[in-house]
Amino acid sequence: MVTMRDVAERANVSIATVSFVLNGTKRVAPATRARIEAAIEELNYRRNVVARALASSRTRILALLHPDLESRPNATVIQFVMGAAHGARERGYDLVLWPVNDDEQMSHLLAGGLVDGVLLMEVQIRDSRVERLLSSGVPFVLIGRTENDDLPYVDIDFATTIHQAVEHLRSYSHRNIALVTQRTKASPGNEPGRIMRVESAYLGAIAPLGGRPAVITVEGTSAGGREAASTLHTDFPEATAVILVNEGASAGLAKGVRALGRTVPEELSIISAATTHEFGEMIEPALTVMAAPAPELGRLAADALVDQLEGVPASPHVLIPCTLVPGQSVGPAHL
Amino acid sequence: MVTMRDVAERANVSIATVSFVLNGTKRVAPATRARIEAAIEELNYRRNVVARALASSRTRILALLHPDLESRPNATVIQFVMGAAHGARERGYDLVLWPVNDDEQMSHLLAGGLVDGVLLMEVQIRDSRVERLLSSGVPFVLIGRTENDDLPYVDIDFATTIHQAVEHLRSYSHRNIALVTQRTKASPGNEPGRIMRVESAYLGAIAPLGGRPAVITVEGTSAGGREAASTLHTDFPEATAVILVNEGASAGLAKGVRALGRTVPEELSIISAATTHEFGEMIEPALTVMAAPAPELGRLAADALVDQLEGVPASPHVLIPCTLVPGQSVGPAHL
Repeated sequence: MVTMRDVAERANVSIATVSFVLNGTKRVAPATRARIEAAIEELNYRRNVVARALASSRTRILALLHPDLESRPNATVIQFVMGAAHGARERGYDLVLWPVNDDEQMSHLLAGGLVDGVLLMEVQIRDSRVERLLSSGVPFVLIGRTENDDLPYVDIDFATTIHQAVEHLRSYSHRNIALVTQRTKASPGNEPGRIMRVESAYLGAIAPLGGRPAVITVEGTSAGGREAASTLHTDFPEATAVILVNEGASAGLAKGVRALGRTVPEELSIISAATTHEFGEMIEPALTVMAAPAPELGRLAADALVDQLEGVPASPHVLIPCTLVPGQSVGPAHL
Repeated sequence: MVTMRDVAERANVSIATVSFVLNGTKRVAPATRARIEAAIEELNYRRNVVARALASSRTRILALLHPDLESRPNATVIQFVMGAAHGARERGYDLVLWPVNDDEQMSHLLAGGLVDGVLLMEVQIRDSRVERLLSSGVPFVLIGRTENDDLPYVDIDFATTIHQAVEHLRSYSHRNIALVTQRTKASPGNEPGRIMRVESAYLGAIAPLGGRPAVITVEGTSAGGREAASTLHTDFPEATAVILVNEGASAGLAKGVRALGRTVPEELSIISAATTHEFGEMIEPALTVMAAPAPELGRLAADALVDQLEGVPASPHVLIPCTLVPGQSVGPAHL
């Protein structure tokens, strides 16, 4: 069996240097590194990750849990996932995807001891998966928040995001602003935290404007977007602007509004929040978006988890607002 | 230390039954399973995946490699990834994501011995990563194909897909059909296999129609789509229909065509191939798509890899064409 010593001898370096390259624990000059990589390949050395894991009782594997990655691929969610995968790799960890949507299956996986830590997405206000994580003893970081703000998390700062969206519309003289959020399978009062936080920020931000609150909840699909357009038309005809926090419904909303004979932005302004610039650009007209800091938050979530695992002191709470990227869907209110 | 025997005693079942539940190797009655899960939780039993891996010299982890998952999240690619993650879980394996785009980093990861097998995406005609895989001895399945058809792969049947798209347009009397594909960073002649296969299928399928071939290659972005619209307008004014195999450019193409004063489908028909129905629906007008069998192929790729690992005889080559889903972007040719 080929050992690390064989690799070191072949590459004419110390065993420690081979270890630095293999573990990514220390910078090694590119030329030296190339020599070591070549020796590894020539000798067909397969480092025994498993033996290392057994010795350290660590696997250097993180899991990312999302209940329905397959059914609703969403540009922003994917940026979170990929940001986390990159962040993990940068710290020398691997990220496994667990598209898990039942608690039992989750406990089963946690009991397997495969992963050192967990990133949890689509976090609900009261989330039984968090209870399972706490009782399993496996370290975790939430992407999102429960009602318990003490748990470690990274999240979009929805309060600031919604306030900025309202301010932007207000600067265009909008007073009657509606909100469109996402209907989920969760029971009422126990939705993903973002939905409740968005709604409460919205109610706070529009209060000084004196308009009637208008909250519409639809599925995150094209059909959901068309439903929102029609509800808006029928129930809230006074609204001159909409803030949408439902990426999957954004194209349907723009289409539905047009199908009802209203032009965007002349007769209705739209801001799509917590989405990507590229996604908003695809829609007709190109939407003004509040772009989610998703790649960054994904990476920070992985970082925070690795910090936790390695005993590095770090802030367990990260909140970053979305960034306004003007498109062609916001104009002056018709009064 | 809590052992499997402790769990079996607590749940009042045999050790074999506990093992069936933990390994997913045999169906166990739900009530029994619940009892075992409860015992695992009460005893806080963490099964030593690492010890099991050491005993079997297997980790039951598969890696999925894609060179640029982060930079270009694409609805169809995500369906492949999630299909593979589900497929792996169904067979009792975990899927790690390796967003790796350099060969050296890849060799480094393979040398770590973490994974039992690899799924490789965005496969080029001649792909140095495949050479690395072959020399590493790690089993793999390609999602896509090199020029060497003997390697194990799953892929979209692009030849059939393009022929069906041309047939559909032909049934609407189109004779002058253009093709829009994707520009990549790969050197000419060494693009991802799908691009060369699409082009050659297109040239074969339009030959009997007598029209002038029109192949336009643009980036997979909204800007790329607008560029395609403009090139089409200037260089191929006779084209009455376009087949697009470039999901990222589809919204930009539809917008660009409209911006040049041409209506879809009255003056130009569009079919978007190798994308998702939901994605095509977002565009104005809703695109007629050839929907990619991506969730299915992702799952079959994981299956084929596990079959290979477990010595199950199986077809190493799977080709499935896309499925036509009519939208509102195809109409009769204006002659």
